[in-house]
Amino acid sequence: MQHRKLTARNQTPAEARTALICAAICAGWSDVGRFPAAIGATPMDDPNNLAARLRALEDREAVRDLIASYGPLADSGDGEAAAALWTEDGTYEVIGFAKAVGRADIAALIDGPVHRALMADGCAHMLGPITITISGDSAQARGHSLVLRHTGSGFEAHRVAANRWTLARTAAGWRVTHRINALLDGTEEARLLLAPN
Amino acid sequence: MQHRKLTARNQTPAEARTALICAAICAGWSDVGRFPAAIGATPMDDPNNLAARLRALEDREAVRDLIASYGPLADSGDGEAAAALWTEDGTYEVIGFAKAVGRADIAALIDGPVHRALMADGCAHMLGPITITISGDSAQARGHSLVLRHTGSGFEAHRVAANRWTLARTAAGWRVTHRINALLDGTEEARLLLAPN
Amino acid sequence: MQHRKLTARNQTPAEARTALICAAICAGWSDVGRFPAAIGATPMDDPNNLAARLRALEDREAVRDLIASYGPLADSGDGEAAAALWTEDGTYEVIGFAKAVGRADIAALIDGPVHRALMADGCAHMLGPITITISGDSAQARGHSLVLRHTGSGFEAHRVAANRWTLARTAAGWRVTHRINALLDGTEEARLLLAPN
Repeated sequence: MQHRKLTARNQTPAEARTALICAAICAGWSDVGRFPAAIGATPMDDPNNLAARLRALEDREAVRDLIASYGPLADSGDGEAAAALWTEDGTYEVIGFAKAVGRADIAALIDGPVHRALMADGCAHMLGPITITISGDSAQARGHSLVLRHTGSGFEAHRVAANRWTLARTAAGWRVTHRINALLDGTEEARLLLAPN
Repeated sequence: MQHRKLTARNQTPAEARTALICAAICAGWSDVGRFPAAIGATPMDDPNNLAARLRALEDREAVRDLIASYGPLADSGDGEAAAALWTEDGTYEVIGFAKAVGRADIAALIDGPVHRALMADGCAHMLGPITITISGDSAQARGHSLVLRHTGSGFEAHRVAANRWTLARTAAGWRVTHRINALLDGTEEARLLLAPN
Repeated sequence: MQHRKLTARNQTPAEARTALICAAICAGWSDVGRFPAAIGATPMDDPNNLAARLRALEDREAVRDLIASYGPLADSGDGEAAAALWTEDGTYEVIGFAKAVGRADIAALIDGPVHRALMADGCAHMLGPITITISGDSAQARGHSLVLRHTGSGFEAHRVAANRWTLARTAAGWRVTHRINALLDGTEEARLLLAPN
């Protein structure tokens, strides 16, 4: 990347402005890829472009951490904290099992007999990596989930599913508005959750 | 996000300052969520706020990459490199199996007969996603681990565990000061490792 | 981090410059760790240093998201979209099974009988976390992959493998130039894919 190295010592204001434009253009190159939408709307020579790009990364990090915290909260048995990852009226839909609407219902899934039986055996609600798309104040993430269950003699892959998460930026940060989960048992419905849009 | 788009061309210094304040406030909105602590301590109209926010993301990225590199290093059999993810006096505690203190002891776990037998069979030390909390120069991460073992005819989930990582910022970057790992076999001790604080 | 908090209200330009240098130095501390190479080449007192650091994070995020999208695309059956994660002439090498060169060949792996049979049963191509190294316009990532297959009565770990991804920055963003995957069945060849360099 040596050819893109910039030095700004002792610059005139005009030189500094030029350097900033160059930096923005150079830095923007990587924006051609996968998460640039909001960035493209900001003029390249706008100092605030840095803030917008930074915020785009912060948004992705917040969404990633929010979703990454689901499994540990679920397996620690804290239904209320797990439900708080959703908006107040958020939905957690597990095809063929339950459709919980609102935090109380979502917490009840964690506090209910099916999840408690899993916890008593020993379980891990692991997720695979998610691919995240942010569009303004909403976001979507797609990825796999794997529930492992202790059987006494070992562990079994109890449930393997496709997940599509829809999220919204709220005054309290990013929250899940809808999570839909479907068993990857060969049905097209599950597979389609993993497809873009 | 159109209503938050900022244009700074031909601004007076006062206008530019106002725009910067707005940008910081807008950008800070997403900070209300999950990883804002250090950021809140920096004045919103301080240009260095960008550096502080950037650093917060760099810290999270460094912690994530450090932890993500454990499994590949362990399964490549490089005990010394795996142990170097810890501080010199760091601890790796596997409940019911071992408590290794210091890099030499941690490397010995990788170089020892249990891990070498797993490697000879074929194994994968996979982690689930981690949720990270950074507070100044210390950090915590929580998440699952899954050891898969080749059995000849296929693979089995050999070990499924809860993990809590404690980390410190050192002159050489982030390092693990303590990792505790407990089998998710239904015991509360393991579940509690996945709970916040 | 209180000792590093910076306030820039009512600063003279010289004071502001000093503050910026301090911020850069402070922020740079965390760069001593794992992904600092390009950053170190930029003068600490250069305002464009922020852009370079931001870009380093954007690069890592783009690589992570690109790789994270492989599994969902593969399991949704979209061979063309999965192949588009590679460069036009990219290679996907699965030791002992196939070496696909170019997008058409890579798409054919997803559209071919082996993958379609897995999809008909129900499958999940999950990845573990990856450790990423970026060097200018090229990158490398290492990590595990796990293919789970629905068996009717449950799920089995069908394939557990080591992966080394090599990537290049292109005009369209980061793309995979080479992915090599080897079964973790105890052979050294697979283990070495997980080692640095």
